Amino acid sequence: MPARVITILTDFGLGDPFVGMMKGVILTLAPEVQIVDLTHNITPGDIKTAAFFLKQSFKFFPHGSIHIGVVDPGVGGERKAILVQAENHFFVGPDNGLFYPLVADKEFKAFHLNKTEFHLPEVSRTFHGRDIFAPVAAYLSKGVSPQRLGEQIPLIQKLELPLIKKEGKFLRGEIIHIDSFGNLISNIPKTALAGKRVKEVRIKDVVLKGLCRSYSEKKKGELLCLIDSFSLLEISANQAKAAEILKADRGESLEVEFY
Amino acid sequence: MPARVITILTDFGLGDPFVGMMKGVILTLAPEVQIVDLTHNITPGDIKTAAFFLKQSFKFFPHGSIHIGVVDPGVGGERKAILVQAENHFFVGPDNGLFYPLVADKEFKAFHLNKTEFHLPEVSRTFHGRDIFAPVAAYLSKGVSPQRLGEQIPLIQKLELPLIKKEGKFLRGEIIHIDSFGNLISNIPKTALAGKRVKEVRIKDVVLKGLCRSYSEKKKGELLCLIDSFSLLEISANQAKAAEILKADRGESLEVEFY
Amino acid sequence: MPARVITILTDFGLGDPFVGMMKGVILTLAPEVQIVDLTHNITPGDIKTAAFFLKQSFKFFPHGSIHIGVVDPGVGGERKAILVQAENHFFVGPDNGLFYPLVADKEFKAFHLNKTEFHLPEVSRTFHGRDIFAPVAAYLSKGVSPQRLGEQIPLIQKLELPLIKKEGKFLRGEIIHIDSFGNLISNIPKTALAGKRVKEVRIKDVVLKGLCRSYSEKKKGELLCLIDSFSLLEISANQAKAAEILKADRGESLEVEFY
Repeated sequence: MPARVITILTDFGLGDPFVGMMKGVILTLAPEVQIVDLTHNITPGDIKTAAFFLKQSFKFFPHGSIHIGVVDPGVGGERKAILVQAENHFFVGPDNGLFYPLVADKEFKAFHLNKTEFHLPEVSRTFHGRDIFAPVAAYLSKGVSPQRLGEQIPLIQKLELPLIKKEGKFLRGEIIHIDSFGNLISNIPKTALAGKRVKEVRIKDVVLKGLCRSYSEKKKGELLCLIDSFSLLEISANQAKAAEILKADRGESLEVEFY
Repeated sequence: MPARVITILTDFGLGDPFVGMMKGVILTLAPEVQIVDLTHNITPGDIKTAAFFLKQSFKFFPHGSIHIGVVDPGVGGERKAILVQAENHFFVGPDNGLFYPLVADKEFKAFHLNKTEFHLPEVSRTFHGRDIFAPVAAYLSKGVSPQRLGEQIPLIQKLELPLIKKEGKFLRGEIIHIDSFGNLISNIPKTALAGKRVKEVRIKDVVLKGLCRSYSEKKKGELLCLIDSFSLLEISANQAKAAEILKADRGESLEVEFY
Repeated sequence: MPARVITILTDFGLGDPFVGMMKGVILTLAPEVQIVDLTHNITPGDIKTAAFFLKQSFKFFPHGSIHIGVVDPGVGGERKAILVQAENHFFVGPDNGLFYPLVADKEFKAFHLNKTEFHLPEVSRTFHGRDIFAPVAAYLSKGVSPQRLGEQIPLIQKLELPLIKKEGKFLRGEIIHIDSFGNLISNIPKTALAGKRVKEVRIKDVVLKGLCRSYSEKKKGELLCLIDSFSLLEISANQAKAAEILKADRGESLEVEFY
């Protein structure tokens, strides 16, 4: 069955017509697809945030969806253009680690997109999103098999992500994303807290007692800690920006103490 | 007939993948709908602007359209998730006043969205846009009746909006929105001026004589006053930002004097 | 065959519901079309950038696509609303030069959109994007002929664009756009370099030797010069913002010297 949904995530911003051009290429080849913007406001070259967003988002789309990711500082150089098939989804973009977290502990197939008959006739050296990834995603959505689009490869580029550290009653992690509400999202998953009771969470010189269930359990402007919609431990403030209150940035460490 | 259009308005911004996730949920359940972004750049928690935009926008969409509004500072707390049916349109979101201006002087039906079989299997406490409103809108678009989605309720949360005051030859209102062109949009509707002739409009220490019909009636940079595309009285400047010229903000009062 | 794609380019920004309203009007009349945002972040009134984006983008969309352009500082005044047919595409918007570069050296037909039965019943003086261009595009997509939508006119408004100057071994141009990556895009097309070998490119007090093929040929942060995805000469920096490094703005001149 042909895919109905193609998502696009880039670091192109929305001020230039680059994303629009990609959609034009897709709709020329596959007029029936639904195209969804994941975000285009990734900081240029920030592969880690892009990888985090892709990993968190793809599962909310229908099986068979195709996800184009273009955070591609090495465009036109040595890095491969690839297609990754995993978890009943497809991922198209540069082989620079962007798709690694998706497949780190999963079965996957990867393909080097070297069949130029599925690219635009003229391929620029600076915009593979439009010239390679968009047409490949369109052909894929129409039922062209991954094997025809490229040669299978055994490995893809790794991406080092910050790990959590467990030491007795303590768990140490770090802030990996700050969202537009100023919430500080850590790399500590809900599963790491399973079966335990959180005594306190420490970040900078602040100690937060226990976990809340929702923002509104605290007064307006007060800091709190909860499991968020990514199923990650998050430091927030009710109707305020935790990042501003704490003057904390990505990379800030935090510590959980259990009973 | 199933609905074809679902609109989304949020205060999520476009830097995170939250809106994309909502679209994924919708397209998984209702692959045929057209999804339209109303805006996602509402200032976090600014229910009044969101309510104003919804009220002004919904009528340009086809009958039967479904409008999701997620400006939801109380998410996960006491406030209800609701569906409002009015004017041949549907509105889905939190019961915090967001939909009140739409129905203030209209017939409507409202439903408390408490039928969890139409929500995502796992509902977070921080993102009901994705976990409740998106799937409910999708099921609604496929023909599931409001009655099956929730229990009917007689009232929804009110929202206090600034009123205009009439005193003899004078009409007093206030600026309720500043658009991206720096136009100052007031709460004085065209209908309040019907059958009268405007002598002057006063805002801060500026007096504007009579109404213009279009921006270009004045020289570049000059202030003017007209009935805008919201059918509201607006203070503008031709090819310039009235808000900057007047150093005026939302809430600024203005006065109309009639002949 | 009816058109399937309508693109929209405006200077409305994404903070107001104006673009959403236009989409509502289109989908009410033509529920089957695919609507694509080209960009809405044009600086208010910047017709030149809008014209550049349109000219560069339209060709990536299917034949028969309809492109609405609304950068319209003269809305409600004397300027005509027009439809331009060229290169198997349609362009709808104000007659203020926006579409001139598209047709400067091409065959085209132009129509004055004066058939009000194809506009919204109530046409505001400040928002023709919603009240005229959107419904006209929708009717056009459904097969209404340009001749029925308006009266044919022989000429459209010109737009003066910066020209390149050739003098012996030298070519002089200027920066016409800075993209979100800080790349400086010039008005010197690839074709002007055909059959010649670039010795150096000079901008401000910087001399760049020869052309690169991709960003990654230089070290991170180093300036370079290449033919970009617009097929134009571009000054860039690998993984850095050339515009910031050079403190250069739109309008900056540059010079190419050939061997």
